Amino acid sequence: MSARWDLSDWMQPRLQRVEHALSQWVDAQAPAGLGQAMRYAVLDGGKRLRPLLLLATAEAVGAGDSPAALRAACALELIHAYSLVHDDMPCMDNDVLRRGKPTVHVQFGQAQALLAGDALQALAFELLTPEDASVPLAVQAACVGLLARASGYWGMAGGQAIDLAHVGSRLSEDQLRQMHRLKTGALLLCSVQMGVACGAQVASGTRVALSRFGEVLGLAFQVVDDILDVTADSATLGKTAGKDAAADKPTYVALMGLQAAQHFADELAEQAQQALVDTGLPAQHLAALRGLAAMVVQRNH
Amino acid sequence: MSARWDLSDWMQPRLQRVEHALSQWVDAQAPAGLGQAMRYAVLDGGKRLRPLLLLATAEAVGAGDSPAALRAACALELIHAYSLVHDDMPCMDNDVLRRGKPTVHVQFGQAQALLAGDALQALAFELLTPEDASVPLAVQAACVGLLARASGYWGMAGGQAIDLAHVGSRLSEDQLRQMHRLKTGALLLCSVQMGVACGAQVASGTRVALSRFGEVLGLAFQVVDDILDVTADSATLGKTAGKDAAADKPTYVALMGLQAAQHFADELAEQAQQALVDTGLPAQHLAALRGLAAMVVQRNH
Repeated sequence: MSARWDLSDWMQPRLQRVEHALSQWVDAQAPAGLGQAMRYAVLDGGKRLRPLLLLATAEAVGAGDSPAALRAACALELIHAYSLVHDDMPCMDNDVLRRGKPTVHVQFGQAQALLAGDALQALAFELLTPEDASVPLAVQAACVGLLARASGYWGMAGGQAIDLAHVGSRLSEDQLRQMHRLKTGALLLCSVQMGVACGAQVASGTRVALSRFGEVLGLAFQVVDDILDVTADSATLGKTAGKDAAADKPTYVALMGLQAAQHFADELAEQAQQALVDTGLPAQHLAALRGLAAMVVQRNH
Repeated sequence: MSARWDLSDWMQPRLQRVEHALSQWVDAQAPAGLGQAMRYAVLDGGKRLRPLLLLATAEAVGAGDSPAALRAACALELIHAYSLVHDDMPCMDNDVLRRGKPTVHVQFGQAQALLAGDALQALAFELLTPEDASVPLAVQAACVGLLARASGYWGMAGGQAIDLAHVGSRLSEDQLRQMHRLKTGALLLCSVQMGVACGAQVASGTRVALSRFGEVLGLAFQVVDDILDVTADSATLGKTAGKDAAADKPTYVALMGLQAAQHFADELAEQAQQALVDTGLPAQHLAALRGLAAMVVQRNH
């Protein structure tokens, strides 16, 4: 066994914790098959980037083992999952393949998919407010506030509205950045901010640097997503490749070309690493965040 | 001027407070027309029964003027509004008329309607967790927990799933009651419970009796809704009348006949009044709740 720190070794037990918790917390018995549709949307197959980011941040500020962190990690994944279910519906992206499986509306019908998405959003806020005393009330309130704002009209939903309104039209780089800052960036930033909220008395400079890290990483994630839409095939992606280009959606690749987009992603990766240095936290507390940031930029799906 | 207590006199300023707050809190500037679609769904035209029930309950327990109560009242209405937007969509009830206006998907398109519903749900939880110190953290956490559970898979969304799964099939009275307990009852009960949560140190007997009141009123509301679907016309209802019967949906009228359903509604109204007596609160604190309960049963739309 190597004594060197390894991202896979760090991720594996945390992914298991998250999978186990999600499986326990999304109730299969919920009425009229709704629980089954929700489990189908959530379990097996996600990269769990947001939960891992949250847990890595919570660990960096000394709250990795808190019940709050596990709940917040799962709540984030439920919000992400609901957004995919609704995004795939015929009136939105009309996608039939997700994580290599038929999408929820293909499998369960559109009405059940709509309800499953709605109920996943509600369940996220339920997870953040346990009825036992396991999560301090201040942490509950902070996490709900962060998640509601990140997923709402000045966050994810607003970004999706911009996206929909601009299919087939050319955006400036500023407009594109604004769209992505909301559509995917807000929830990634929220992963970091909720992780910080799980900790007690995080220094304000650390908090600011971690938020900067979350912001830059969110943008890098989207740039890489746009690159993969062009360079990867559907089997590797687990979803339909080339779809954004085919739909003439605004992307970084469309805006700046493939090579410049790749340079931009590398530049953002460096900015993310610098933000981690700026936290002032000990290097060994930052290894997981460093590793996740590198993974986001180097991923092939 | 009469010194006698009058429900309209009580309602009018409270409706104004709620309308003003909703108009202030649903941001017209949200990206790509999303805020406009949300405002269209929420403003002008709702009966605001849930906010009024919440405010009446909060007043009964001495918390009527709290910022928490106004926020919770508006959050309830946002959840109710989102459920109507999604419920009206083609893949669900496919309704084109609501509160006398074209439904949101008719006016703004299905994709925007889907996003508006999603964003209204998120905004409800945002309202419950203000970033200033106006609402105690314990009240924030309690209200979020109640609202998330009432609107999720073991609440409103679950009831809608049962409803969808049983169009054209006959339910027993127990099954029908379970469906309505979740679909409409959970949010009405939650109106009362969040009102209680805004108060400090409510006696446990009072709390139990108020919950009983909320439960019975929720059931009465649905029975009357089923009766009105048969007896009222579309112009009075502000939505398509006779729709449940036409779709062969399970209703109390279908189950027990019109006359028995009317007797059942009256019986539930009496139970609701008795529950108020059981709270042990002074009669003058209960006048608004009494009046609202009578209004629910006697309404003609």
